[in-house]
Amino acid sequence: MRVLLDVSFIGTRYSGWQSQENAVSVQDVLEKAFREATGTFCRMTGASRTDAGVHARCLRVHLDYDGPVPADRLPFVINRFLPGDIRVNVSRQVPDDLHARFKAEGKTYIYRIDPSPHPNALSLPFSWHFPYALDVKKMASAAEDLIGTHDFIAFAAAGFQSKTTVKTIARADVGREDHLVKLTVSGTGFLYNMVRIIAGTLAYVGIGKLDEHCIQRAIRERDRLLLGPTAPPEGLELNEVYYSPAWGIADITKRS
Amino acid sequence: MRVLLDVSFIGTRYSGWQSQENAVSVQDVLEKAFREATGTFCRMTGASRTDAGVHARCLRVHLDYDGPVPADRLPFVINRFLPGDIRVNVSRQVPDDLHARFKAEGKTYIYRIDPSPHPNALSLPFSWHFPYALDVKKMASAAEDLIGTHDFIAFAAAGFQSKTTVKTIARADVGREDHLVKLTVSGTGFLYNMVRIIAGTLAYVGIGKLDEHCIQRAIRERDRLLLGPTAPPEGLELNEVYYSPAWGIADITKRS
Repeated sequence: MRVLLDVSFIGTRYSGWQSQENAVSVQDVLEKAFREATGTFCRMTGASRTDAGVHARCLRVHLDYDGPVPADRLPFVINRFLPGDIRVNVSRQVPDDLHARFKAEGKTYIYRIDPSPHPNALSLPFSWHFPYALDVKKMASAAEDLIGTHDFIAFAAAGFQSKTTVKTIARADVGREDHLVKLTVSGTGFLYNMVRIIAGTLAYVGIGKLDEHCIQRAIRERDRLLLGPTAPPEGLELNEVYYSPAWGIADITKRS
Repeated sequence: MRVLLDVSFIGTRYSGWQSQENAVSVQDVLEKAFREATGTFCRMTGASRTDAGVHARCLRVHLDYDGPVPADRLPFVINRFLPGDIRVNVSRQVPDDLHARFKAEGKTYIYRIDPSPHPNALSLPFSWHFPYALDVKKMASAAEDLIGTHDFIAFAAAGFQSKTTVKTIARADVGREDHLVKLTVSGTGFLYNMVRIIAGTLAYVGIGKLDEHCIQRAIRERDRLLLGPTAPPEGLELNEVYYSPAWGIADITKRS
């Protein structure tokens, strides 16, 4: 049977979701825990690769498993073999053609900036310490220019592999969350490092180093150099992965 | 000069604020870092002891220091010698009679409960995993009975040392924060384990194991046995310590 997992992790100790040589990935740890828990090796496929150090509130992962444990009981057995910074939150049987990555229709990312002179210990692992006064209104106004269907090639780091650089962004909000500044961005897809380039650009808008129209201009001129730096991974959280409602996979915001 | 620090920490690895034998406290680590950074040993006094495993967004700490580093520069030098899970966020010179603990006029605590069947990795270090459906409305209604000036002896763990068990609670809210249930409670003072007993009691109200009037009844009958369990420390955060406005110490919510 095909199983879809919702997986959360603190990315600090990991090289990202996907297995790679000479580094410990979330996939490695999860596949190993699964084998220890069930006696079966199953290759797992994540909806997103996620960079080293990036966190996930809900990464969707599929696998094909034919052992005796019912799909909805898998979290109980797997979590016992996982370190505390990785958890399987939900597991359910899905149709065999639900591919976690190729069938994903959208994602939400959150990026957090701590603009305090000295970072708060509680948010340090989960935010970018950028100790400058930020004009949040200007950041929010600049972020609005992301919304819509655009060629986002200016927002792609070198080495991207997407077939197309045209993506649709449905939501791009900037607001405050306690002492943090929080960017929430939802879209049909994201290029390599795209959210981190957006975050770095908005931070530069926030301190006046870039103007509010830089995003519009960079989209039009397809020019990476009109944007800000790539913000560091620790501020980034993969918040949610969406599928067509036809699959019946509830959004995490509608759970519990 | 007397200096007041705002200190934040992730309490997971520590035995609480206060020094004690055979355990590593936040005070120990901070005093050591201060000595390494300034060459001077200064005894530090916290506004609250905090239990092992409890977190702090803003613990106020005072010390008397007469070295060459200006008060407002101390975070830059101390933070270099601290592990990432402890940060000094603000430092300022204050009048010599501002005692962090005895002059504190109030505190805010936050307690977070993760009611999901399987806890999210991102909130696991900062919440109590209590995997049952919670009636948040009932919890909020029960919490309202805390508000006012009452003898809270029913909410004191054995071994408390307060001179009086009469305290004033100004605020006691229960609401949702993402997938978590969050209790915010502000008051003039708190007995030993009081917030954790409140959290355990409200959780039991949330699952129907205690009724909505149990807090009112326990206050009246001064009976610990009418309340729920002491909730674990990992869900608790000391959020803020208040002083009389006459001292000019800004609340953390009014910073940045």
